[in-house]
Amino acid sequence: MAKQDKGFVQEITPRDRDFAQWYTDVILKTDLVDYAPVRGFMVIKPYGYRIWELIQSELDGRFKATGHQNCYFPLLIPESLLRKEAEHVEGFAPEVAWVTHGGNEELSERLLVRPTSETLFCSMYAKWVQSYRDLPMLYNQWCSVVRWEKSTRPFLRTSEFLWQEGHTIHATADEAQEETMRMLNTYYEFAQNVLAIPMLAGQKTEKEKFAGARATYTIEAMMQDGKSLQSGTSHNFGTNFAEAFDIRFQDENGQMQYVHETSWGTSTRLIGALVMVHGDDRGLVLPPRVAPIQAVILPIAAHKGGVLEAAEGIRAQLADAGIRVQVDDRDYSAGWKFNEWEMKGVPVRIEVGPRDLAAGQVTLVRRDTLEKTTSPIEGLADTIRQLLQSVHDGLYQKALALREAHTTCATTMEQLEAGVQTGMVKAMWCGDQACEDAIKQKTTATARAIPFEQEHLCDTCVVCGKKAKHMVAFAKAY
Amino acid sequence: MAKQDKGFVQEITPRDRDFAQWYTDVILKTDLVDYAPVRGFMVIKPYGYRIWELIQSELDGRFKATGHQNCYFPLLIPESLLRKEAEHVEGFAPEVAWVTHGGNEELSERLLVRPTSETLFCSMYAKWVQSYRDLPMLYNQWCSVVRWEKSTRPFLRTSEFLWQEGHTIHATADEAQEETMRMLNTYYEFAQNVLAIPMLAGQKTEKEKFAGARATYTIEAMMQDGKSLQSGTSHNFGTNFAEAFDIRFQDENGQMQYVHETSWGTSTRLIGALVMVHGDDRGLVLPPRVAPIQAVILPIAAHKGGVLEAAEGIRAQLADAGIRVQVDDRDYSAGWKFNEWEMKGVPVRIEVGPRDLAAGQVTLVRRDTLEKTTSPIEGLADTIRQLLQSVHDGLYQKALALREAHTTCATTMEQLEAGVQTGMVKAMWCGDQACEDAIKQKTTATARAIPFEQEHLCDTCVVCGKKAKHMVAFAKAY
Repeated sequence: MAKQDKGFVQEITPRDRDFAQWYTDVILKTDLVDYAPVRGFMVIKPYGYRIWELIQSELDGRFKATGHQNCYFPLLIPESLLRKEAEHVEGFAPEVAWVTHGGNEELSERLLVRPTSETLFCSMYAKWVQSYRDLPMLYNQWCSVVRWEKSTRPFLRTSEFLWQEGHTIHATADEAQEETMRMLNTYYEFAQNVLAIPMLAGQKTEKEKFAGARATYTIEAMMQDGKSLQSGTSHNFGTNFAEAFDIRFQDENGQMQYVHETSWGTSTRLIGALVMVHGDDRGLVLPPRVAPIQAVILPIAAHKGGVLEAAEGIRAQLADAGIRVQVDDRDYSAGWKFNEWEMKGVPVRIEVGPRDLAAGQVTLVRRDTLEKTTSPIEGLADTIRQLLQSVHDGLYQKALALREAHTTCATTMEQLEAGVQTGMVKAMWCGDQACEDAIKQKTTATARAIPFEQEHLCDTCVVCGKKAKHMVAFAKAY
Repeated sequence: MAKQDKGFVQEITPRDRDFAQWYTDVILKTDLVDYAPVRGFMVIKPYGYRIWELIQSELDGRFKATGHQNCYFPLLIPESLLRKEAEHVEGFAPEVAWVTHGGNEELSERLLVRPTSETLFCSMYAKWVQSYRDLPMLYNQWCSVVRWEKSTRPFLRTSEFLWQEGHTIHATADEAQEETMRMLNTYYEFAQNVLAIPMLAGQKTEKEKFAGARATYTIEAMMQDGKSLQSGTSHNFGTNFAEAFDIRFQDENGQMQYVHETSWGTSTRLIGALVMVHGDDRGLVLPPRVAPIQAVILPIAAHKGGVLEAAEGIRAQLADAGIRVQVDDRDYSAGWKFNEWEMKGVPVRIEVGPRDLAAGQVTLVRRDTLEKTTSPIEGLADTIRQLLQSVHDGLYQKALALREAHTTCATTMEQLEAGVQTGMVKAMWCGDQACEDAIKQKTTATARAIPFEQEHLCDTCVVCGKKAKHMVAFAKAY
């Protein structure tokens, strides 16, 4: 795109001036994404899509290792199917895209573009399951969903996004609950070990749970502006949908029973999360395990004899070791390239110049701290692998510190109101939705989760002063 | 699904009684696919989807190795965008699904669910490309598309299917043509080396080419009923779309030029192809490279000491060698399991019983020929790997023989009419669409391709007797 050979990094708005604009600048200028011709839709560009592929690969491996199989269910759902489960239709009908014509003919029944696929899975499960021997069925699909949104931002909230949706059915309530928690834990572990993002895990309140679920569990991430981002959810439906769709099986005693059902999902939203958790004023800082390029090699004074050959030799050494590596031998200045790859968030930069080569070494710069070291070319792959691990760990610790700095406890409404201006607030709650509503109305903050790790802050609800039931984490959210 | 412990294989209709019913029986009974609640749509079940994942993995590796990158473009396209290229809209408008409402509001402009994404890619390429330095752009996406079909059959023709669509832009006509052929050749090689299907490669006639393309190239497979199946196409658009969408770049001399564009695609149709090419009256016969399970281990007299342990030891040996293997220790009779796995098309069955074990060996049965051999357990992974290669080669040779048996040459209309009843007919053609139309009207056969490997059968067109321009391959097609 014929970039000017100077200071384009200055084009990124500093975070403390305008965090929302910083986010937009970063995702557009690093070629993660672009706006599509239809308002509210996005085009995920190769650099962004490669991150998604790496996320998919990591998650999919975990799903398969726990016995899940992928499948594909149709894009379009008959309106009558959506209407079978009362809460579900109420939750989703206002935000679906309706197909009314196929070819030149008006359809006898409207079809909706899937916003989620519980209803389709249920209609097929009702057909497929007969005996306890058929259970559990542990299915997942990777696809796109459409939810008509009025206010959108790429990755965070768009009218179409990519995701995975797991749908499982089980013989007993216990097994369904176990599955629900297994998949939430899978997301939690993945976020920590792959995205370097610490998550707050807990249960959603009745008000915030998924339409049609008996219980929804969530992982919530803290962004640098103190807002919370729901990053993955896992739902236990009990027999709600089974009753609406008549999904029954014959148990070991020959009795007909309803199946117990779960669903769980994560989406391209995770890309938004990792941008907003790790990025800095120079641009992206990618966690190494999902970085499309983990190390970029920059030949310095490339016209000098042996430099390009050495760069290529190093590339081969690292590629053989399974490191995603690239040589940038384009005809730009070294300074321009430093900026470019810093903006793109590549975890490690390797500078290869005549002076280094004479000493049998290279210069390494890690993206997170910009710390510079030198390292022998021999055995460089091991060094880089350790450095990538160190970047991962550093990012995680920094994100953990960020979360702690933006989390407070409140025993009064004044403290809560002050706290949610800059982060998450833990407070006691009586369990009454009126109090939850009052907090939202007063502060725009919502109950993000009833954390699994409960603390006893005081005896009474922060709103009404009645006896408290739970500690809840409140925050403004994307 | 509580299958009866006997003869369900008889439920498959023999091919020579009713090939269409045989196909339906096989794909439903082997759990590849099921009918969705919306007519014309399919649910791809885990066993079928796993084949698709393996196809994806093989193709995606080839795309990346030739410099292509994946991305994701939106599901919905504004009607005005479709209308920009005249031929394209004429070809696709009659078969699109229209979204008219988002949430509770009527849209100001109708949106179509993508039937293909040329128009979207063009709208973005127009924005992204400025200089010759930005070229080529070599993008691909994996997604689903919707084309409203009146008469459907799972995998072969459905109102929604999964596919990949590559879209590339280039500085010169030569580069675009080179890309068009490179990708056609990629499909051809993939079909041969992965699916074990020999393809006829050639160019489509003007009548049969893609709406908006300057030239369409195709690979065509021969099914066991003598019908042809278009299995992959690659299009050269020249500057057609570039002119309609104003996609221009500044060349090395500072002149503005239109880009040259290609697109190319394959789909879940390939699953239908491999079923209809390789299957037999017992069910599926899967080519080993896309078989979800390449070898199944059946413990015989599993209650006898050491049998299950030996089966597990063999499984571990094969899995370590990268073979997709599974032990079936379910409580069914050996005969039932033989039938089940034969129906499911698993390339190699390994029987492990006390007698074999005493001799340090196992019994191997290959699915394609049902040939039985014994082999020492030590070094079994190598034996299985060779056997899988041998099954692949055998399937390919059989498919090649099938194609030859169903291909004839015609120099008269009588010969052509007779030939297309049972297969493909090569005949000379003057290049006039009236003659092509006449053949279709008389026989329902269409021009599948102008094969790259031209033969000179005679001097004159098989229809009108005028001077012939090309040899064309005519056949009835799915």
